[in-house]
Amino acid sequence: MTDTLTRTDLGAEAARWIERLARVSEPGPGVTRLPFTEEHRSVLPLLTELMESAGLGVRMDAAATLIGRRGGPAGAPTLLMGSHQDSVRQGGAYDGAMGVVLPVLALRALGDAPLPFAVEVLAFADEEGARFPTALMGPRALAGTFDPAVLDLADPGGVTLRAAMEGFGLDPDAVAGLRRDPAGVMGWIECHIEQGPVLEAEGEALGVVTAICGIERHSVIWDGEAAHAGTVPMALRRDALAAAADLVLAVEARARETEGLLATVGALKVLPGVVNAVPGQVEMTVEIRAPDDAVREAAGAALSARAEQIAAARGVRVAMRRTYAQPATPCDPRLQDALAAAVRAVGGRGMRLASGATHDSSAMADLCPVAMLFLACRDGISHNPAEYCAPEVMGHAVEALAALLPNLERS
Amino acid sequence: MTDTLTRTDLGAEAARWIERLARVSEPGPGVTRLPFTEEHRSVLPLLTELMESAGLGVRMDAAATLIGRRGGPAGAPTLLMGSHQDSVRQGGAYDGAMGVVLPVLALRALGDAPLPFAVEVLAFADEEGARFPTALMGPRALAGTFDPAVLDLADPGGVTLRAAMEGFGLDPDAVAGLRRDPAGVMGWIECHIEQGPVLEAEGEALGVVTAICGIERHSVIWDGEAAHAGTVPMALRRDALAAAADLVLAVEARARETEGLLATVGALKVLPGVVNAVPGQVEMTVEIRAPDDAVREAAGAALSARAEQIAAARGVRVAMRRTYAQPATPCDPRLQDALAAAVRAVGGRGMRLASGATHDSSAMADLCPVAMLFLACRDGISHNPAEYCAPEVMGHAVEALAALLPNLERS
Repeated sequence: MTDTLTRTDLGAEAARWIERLARVSEPGPGVTRLPFTEEHRSVLPLLTELMESAGLGVRMDAAATLIGRRGGPAGAPTLLMGSHQDSVRQGGAYDGAMGVVLPVLALRALGDAPLPFAVEVLAFADEEGARFPTALMGPRALAGTFDPAVLDLADPGGVTLRAAMEGFGLDPDAVAGLRRDPAGVMGWIECHIEQGPVLEAEGEALGVVTAICGIERHSVIWDGEAAHAGTVPMALRRDALAAAADLVLAVEARARETEGLLATVGALKVLPGVVNAVPGQVEMTVEIRAPDDAVREAAGAALSARAEQIAAARGVRVAMRRTYAQPATPCDPRLQDALAAAVRAVGGRGMRLASGATHDSSAMADLCPVAMLFLACRDGISHNPAEYCAPEVMGHAVEALAALLPNLERS
Repeated sequence: MTDTLTRTDLGAEAARWIERLARVSEPGPGVTRLPFTEEHRSVLPLLTELMESAGLGVRMDAAATLIGRRGGPAGAPTLLMGSHQDSVRQGGAYDGAMGVVLPVLALRALGDAPLPFAVEVLAFADEEGARFPTALMGPRALAGTFDPAVLDLADPGGVTLRAAMEGFGLDPDAVAGLRRDPAGVMGWIECHIEQGPVLEAEGEALGVVTAICGIERHSVIWDGEAAHAGTVPMALRRDALAAAADLVLAVEARARETEGLLATVGALKVLPGVVNAVPGQVEMTVEIRAPDDAVREAAGAALSARAEQIAAARGVRVAMRRTYAQPATPCDPRLQDALAAAVRAVGGRGMRLASGATHDSSAMADLCPVAMLFLACRDGISHNPAEYCAPEVMGHAVEALAALLPNLERS
């Protein structure tokens, strides 16, 4: 059935839907569509129209996940696909929304061709956490990892998640009942823009995700001695910023020399922070990401040890404390292979890469095997009005999904 | 006459005067005595009492410099000594005030012993520039380098220097007429706490200043590319903070390997400055000080070149711009030697060291040969309520000055 529409046609159709969805936004640059808002309410009929155009039966669950279902043989398991409807503030048009559009277009392209399983395309309400200090409610509800305590968290305007859901016509207490039986779920496949520059740099439209990186964050506080920059000789200084600079470069060097490791000093503050004073204190962050938790943990430990060495050598004190840690989510090897084969079948290399960012897939992994297809984006830009994925790339992805589904073994 | 009082007595007397003067302060920790304020007005009778106790004739000039004069033979030149009455906000008791107390006590110790020159002890109104965005009016007036345009500068409360002076009973337009004839001035000798840790580390009470360091300051702006810390591989990053860290360490290394050079990165700001973003921009300062202008200028040029190399190697842009430059003030070799001989005569080593900070001497050098005697302070702390100079050290300095004066050749 994919023969009936060219890649250009499929890409153009995807771009039309992305454009229609992007118009449903708060005023201002880019797309701002937060969960349980007027914009969220307005996007649901559009997504319903999209899903129904592929013959899907559409309903919304108690977590405001819009679900478009294509039935399968009696007793057959269900393959879940999709992504999220929401955006960050002044974000892009592709992040999330594209992951709903593409599988629907692939199912439409497949038409009546029988599949040995059912398929559901999910549009989750809140992946970004841009309104409430929590996120991923939809997939967590399905996986049975939803914590009802988050219902009491409030947005910056003081509205609790519970109140926002009730205002949206939902029963918050029904979320706990959405848990799916893993036996009935074949797996989860999510399409997403890469949000990075790797595929573009490689000249590839599509990439298969190996894992969603684990993340750890550290707070580092250097205590030296503030001093007059004109009166304290170099040999008598205990310069907190020079010590911090040593660690900034050690963080970078560790990541450069370690396959798959990302490490970043993103924030750094200097006290007293004036031109004529030797810095007495520096506060900085270290963030480490890797698809392999052992690699990440080893880097965290090595950099903590390095900080101690730097402090000892410079006569300053350091307190490096891990403030956050989230393990990696490996993607299912069989689904990865199937996805890579589908990408190759439509002319790609089936290149593998890790995801540095968190996705709905991170939470879905608690329910079932997960896989992700990354699409090249322009200049690696995301969470920004300039976010862009070429129609040709999207058409390529629809073809790959349409090639994947008939070849996916029921499991 | 120094025989009549022991070093302990002289130090105790100095400490008593320092304590009396320190009580004349705005409320709050330490000493806050700004020019042309009630505190300034209140300190003048005390300083007058101090000067008159040594038989000096006291007057105040149009720049509010309090002048205590000991006459000399007819037609003899005048040796100027002293320092400043004002403090920074919440500063210490010794900075400035001690430089007025010690020469007066030395003259008192000398008693009627004849000198072949007149001596004036000066207490300048404003060295720190803590109230108005200008400083050194008193010595600049004497040297003929006073710029009347600064009279229109205002303090944070909107009061101009002109208005403040008028409120103090002064005629601002008379300041220009204070210029001294260099032929009548033998030189300027200033006692000051070191404000650094060198003498204390050397176990010396007194040191002779070789030069007041020249200073240059640079603004450095690094433009890299802000990026998601999870999605951009190390090889594709253009991290402004890593580039800045390279320069922080290069600045330190240059100073460590160059005799007499001080170089400091005191301020550094990171944008966007969040834990999960590769820094896109960093603004930092570089300050360089040296007693030798050629050494300082060479360091500035070398570090600018190094910044360009770092930028090129990292694919970021850098703009390093010199925002300030002030040449060094060499101290007079003959006065230095005389001061060192006097220090040795009272048991010190006559150690030489540069001054990293600016002093009244910096401006007096435009009028006459200058010299400075540094006194060891505790832990190198200054501009702070904890500033402290031991009575023993002050007594030592009074003895050195009393030993110096009779041996100073009239020139």
